[in-house]
Amino acid sequence: MENCVFCKIISGEFSSRKIYEDDKTLAFLDISKDVDGHILVVPKKHVKNVLDCDNETLSSVMATVKKVSNHLVDNCGYHGVNLLNCNDESAGQTVPHLHIHIIPRKKDDQVDAWPKFTGAKEELDDILNKLKMN
Amino acid sequence: MENCVFCKIISGEFSSRKIYEDDKTLAFLDISKDVDGHILVVPKKHVKNVLDCDNETLSSVMATVKKVSNHLVDNCGYHGVNLLNCNDESAGQTVPHLHIHIIPRKKDDQVDAWPKFTGAKEELDDILNKLKMN
Repeated sequence: MENCVFCKIISGEFSSRKIYEDDKTLAFLDISKDVDGHILVVPKKHVKNVLDCDNETLSSVMATVKKVSNHLVDNCGYHGVNLLNCNDESAGQTVPHLHIHIIPRKKDDQVDAWPKFTGAKEELDDILNKLKMN
Repeated sequence: MENCVFCKIISGEFSSRKIYEDDKTLAFLDISKDVDGHILVVPKKHVKNVLDCDNETLSSVMATVKKVSNHLVDNCGYHGVNLLNCNDESAGQTVPHLHIHIIPRKKDDQVDAWPKFTGAKEELDDILNKLKMN
């Protein structure tokens, strides 16, 4: 999509540090330098996020997430990974092209990859009544 | 799997607040009460996490994540969602049965669903040389 930073990375117009690439997906280093090894996995097809992503594209993205994650554990000295994903501006999505963040983890690495949640107010049974589907 | 809390929820031995269920997956409210609407999506098949999950099961989990997320946006007054997932104890995984956290979001809800990362040390090009696959 025109003016999409990740589409320009996929097309090669913008450079990136590629970790893995196949026909449908690309994994590259996040440039934020917030935590060592921070990787983004994106579909080559432009979709905004999980909400508007067809299941086939979503499956190919997750297959690559799994492949890169296992590579980190099997070949790079890591023990696990955190996955993070923001869908919609209200959730902090800044680039409107689906991307899954992979944060590589080692035992006792002191990385805190869990948000500090606050503000729960409602009773669980009240929430259930509002959100249940079937 | 014996002694797996989520397998007991799936089998009905332990109760849960179900949001959605199909043949292969279950979505239910997290009991942590850290943020309103916190939902977990799990496969009915026992796998530890994304690292050991077959692609078919992972696809069915993500299809349910997408379905529940769109329900939250289309029918429940939310605008977006954050997705979180921990793989391995080193990454903070506490229940050894794959689960994707859905955090429903509204504009200006003051929920901070992004971790506070610190500790990046290495240059991106050095990291690239260690982690690149192809």
